[in-house]
Amino acid sequence: MRVLGVDPGLTRCGVGVVEGVAGRPLTMIGVGVVRTPSDAELGQRLVAIEQGIEQWLDDHRPEYVAVERVFSQHNVRTVMGTAQASAVAMLCAARRGIPVALHTPSEVKAAVTGNGRADKAQVGAMVTRLLRLDAPPKPADAADALALAICHIWRAPAVNRLQQAQAAHRRAQLSTRKVTR
Amino acid sequence: MRVLGVDPGLTRCGVGVVEGVAGRPLTMIGVGVVRTPSDAELGQRLVAIEQGIEQWLDDHRPEYVAVERVFSQHNVRTVMGTAQASAVAMLCAARRGIPVALHTPSEVKAAVTGNGRADKAQVGAMVTRLLRLDAPPKPADAADALALAICHIWRAPAVNRLQQAQAAHRRAQLSTRKVTR
Repeated sequence: MRVLGVDPGLTRCGVGVVEGVAGRPLTMIGVGVVRTPSDAELGQRLVAIEQGIEQWLDDHRPEYVAVERVFSQHNVRTVMGTAQASAVAMLCAARRGIPVALHTPSEVKAAVTGNGRADKAQVGAMVTRLLRLDAPPKPADAADALALAICHIWRAPAVNRLQQAQAAHRRAQLSTRKVTR
Repeated sequence: MRVLGVDPGLTRCGVGVVEGVAGRPLTMIGVGVVRTPSDAELGQRLVAIEQGIEQWLDDHRPEYVAVERVFSQHNVRTVMGTAQASAVAMLCAARRGIPVALHTPSEVKAAVTGNGRADKAQVGAMVTRLLRLDAPPKPADAADALALAICHIWRAPAVNRLQQAQAAHRRAQLSTRKVTR
């Protein structure tokens, strides 16, 4: 399974590609950051992110894209930009028919460190170890993108079972509604 | 000046095209809603919004796109979807080189009703009057999109002057920094 992890952001969008399956050693295929100038117009920044993500999809042909799920409890300004960058990443993947998975920051931290409240350094250290790298990827956004990809590879079997169960539940609810109407 | 107004949303994205200049009667060129099914995957919904906006840009060739500026003070779930839908609209416009302007809800209300805290009905009534329509456009998202386009036509001269002043200020700051370094 080859997964592109995306840690969305307008100024720095972390991207990392990991290949492997749960229970086996994982391999880093590539890691980097898509940057956009903070003084550019928002529309132009979104176009630059689109071009960057397209390049990563072209170069590495991932089968899945894992994007950090954005919450709104933090800094309002940052969160809007993060939501907008994540929308572009999801759009690029979905347009190609690549399945998109969202994982929360605490799911990612719990997956790679065992602790949903681990700090950046701990996540970086575990990514380095799990991918057998010489040093933690810099900047932290790049390490976080790899952590997202790892999280997706490890969670994928469970997430698939959950989605199947939810779909079955929705079908059951729909048929119940039809009967009672 | 032909402006496409976009009231962004995942479930209903209002779109409206208005032509005219400040101080003259305005003409509605088109109005509608881009809808996406709420049970579809987020990536697929963003693709559907992209296709819808592209269609409106193809059909009506606006010179400007005016999008509602999203704030995060309201419902967190809705706001994230709104930010993501607005990102897709901005991306579509910027990719074609069409200038994108953002206006806040209160700027739009103040522009069309004179009151930044006007309600939906009042905005709908003024849009109907200003565009000489037989009835307020439905749903409210469609009327809001027309209000955004009207707001942009009326504010454009002032916004342009402001942007020129800000750009001049930035250039002055940059040259000052260079001198003091």
